Amino acid sequence: MGGEATNAALVSAVSEAGGLGVLGCLYRQPDDAVAEIERIRARTGRPFGVNFVLPFLVEETFDACLRQRVPVFVFFRGDPTRAIARARDAGAKTVFQVTTQDEARLACDAGVDVLIAQGMEAGGHMGPAALTTVVPHVVAVAGERPVVASGGIVDGRGLAAVLCLGAAGVSMGTRFLLSDEAPISDAEKQVLLRARPGDTVASEIPDMVWRETWPGVQVRAIRNAFLSRWLGREDELAAEIDQVAEQVERAEREQRTDEMIVLAGAGVGLIDSILPAGEIVRQTAREADAVLTNTVESVLRP
Amino acid sequence: MGGEATNAALVSAVSEAGGLGVLGCLYRQPDDAVAEIERIRARTGRPFGVNFVLPFLVEETFDACLRQRVPVFVFFRGDPTRAIARARDAGAKTVFQVTTQDEARLACDAGVDVLIAQGMEAGGHMGPAALTTVVPHVVAVAGERPVVASGGIVDGRGLAAVLCLGAAGVSMGTRFLLSDEAPISDAEKQVLLRARPGDTVASEIPDMVWRETWPGVQVRAIRNAFLSRWLGREDELAAEIDQVAEQVERAEREQRTDEMIVLAGAGVGLIDSILPAGEIVRQTAREADAVLTNTVESVLRP
Repeated sequence: MGGEATNAALVSAVSEAGGLGVLGCLYRQPDDAVAEIERIRARTGRPFGVNFVLPFLVEETFDACLRQRVPVFVFFRGDPTRAIARARDAGAKTVFQVTTQDEARLACDAGVDVLIAQGMEAGGHMGPAALTTVVPHVVAVAGERPVVASGGIVDGRGLAAVLCLGAAGVSMGTRFLLSDEAPISDAEKQVLLRARPGDTVASEIPDMVWRETWPGVQVRAIRNAFLSRWLGREDELAAEIDQVAEQVERAEREQRTDEMIVLAGAGVGLIDSILPAGEIVRQTAREADAVLTNTVESVLRP
Repeated sequence: MGGEATNAALVSAVSEAGGLGVLGCLYRQPDDAVAEIERIRARTGRPFGVNFVLPFLVEETFDACLRQRVPVFVFFRGDPTRAIARARDAGAKTVFQVTTQDEARLACDAGVDVLIAQGMEAGGHMGPAALTTVVPHVVAVAGERPVVASGGIVDGRGLAAVLCLGAAGVSMGTRFLLSDEAPISDAEKQVLLRARPGDTVASEIPDMVWRETWPGVQVRAIRNAFLSRWLGREDELAAEIDQVAEQVERAEREQRTDEMIVLAGAGVGLIDSILPAGEIVRQTAREADAVLTNTVESVLRP
């Protein structure tokens, strides 16, 4: 998750439970990043990470995280060559999230340690291919590097499934938005909790509102009143974008969830609880164990 | 697979190997269907099925299949209530392929025996959701009914993955196009064999050419010269559609694969062999067994 939806409480709870908590640094200022990192270290001695969306990299924040010797750097979008080299030179492990096999090759050439294969199921900016195909496609070029799956996975069934596809683990975003620790409003958590199958939609509308359009890249969000009003009317929206963007910003300040953009992965309709983040980590691992064991026992050796 | 890409040789080989071969009856005439069914029965004593795309149901062919006492009827699209009742009354098992949870509920209310949850990874007409989410969503309303996953699955890794998501099996189309038995041209098989990750694209263009547009439904096909030329220019295409449709039909007659529509699922880039259909069934099952066993041994109890 890019930025505001993560904080020290969430990151440290995930790491303390045996996962790898990652602090989103999109648009985060260096002082704020350093303060959160200090809070993480006060709460856990385990490894954690920071992430950066490279086209929007805040250089001063990246420098600050390098100086803080954060153990893991996660990057997304663009050419990661320089960022990987700098993080590696600072002694960190590097991770690059990709949506295609070509991006995976680029990151391998740059010496990345771990790849994240992101499916079109993901919330926020996503690529063209679903996990069932993008995981095997990325595994095919990853060599010995671990490949982690992200997008639409919210439980142990999903973790077990991507392990079978060749992944070494899973990166979850939306599931952790529905944790006690996630620093989003209760109103937003309720929208996510109530979401049903099919309630997310991928479009270019969020990027239009944020003035960040990347050609061909879509953004997955809850299909609320705002998105329903504009889907299929992108040309009209473009003509009114200044006014609409202002309205969305106001809705966001007031947390009127029907009129703001609520990012969510396609798995949001499978989540029916708000839990402590550490319990999400443990429950997902327990479920994956049970699912794999049960599948072997019931299907292969009934 | 809807129609022309299936025949008695393919169907009987799949059933004889322990799968369930399904004869596509889209646009198939009754005499032809009966002849294929007789050929299937001459080659195997095992169960097989027929499938119908309900908005394009040829009533006489449906009647002929009922009279032939085909053991399994598979339906896709539309309201299956009447078709399910008629097939059940004829003593057949019924299967409905769905792309959303709402369609699954409709089919359960109609008394369907088995559901197929189709992901957006599928070739041809596909729905909005990927397998990672649509399988759990359909399983959640299926009760005791088995749920079969379809779309993008071409091997045992994929079968193992969807078993973990709660599916009872897999329905494969594209993988069987690359079988010895599939009655498509060698030119088309070579296009599918050469396809790389990312070489398929979902659009409304095939339906425009076929004059079958269903609002909001897209069709996945190989991104060849023809599709590349028109993607993003659908408005211009609509203005020239008569002429273009004629050109596509000619290309199809001449098997000029760059200028025709070649349907394929998103998993096509993972297939690197043309095999006997029976061997595909056996290999997929063997691989799934190995993947599940290995995942349990290497991840859970290393």
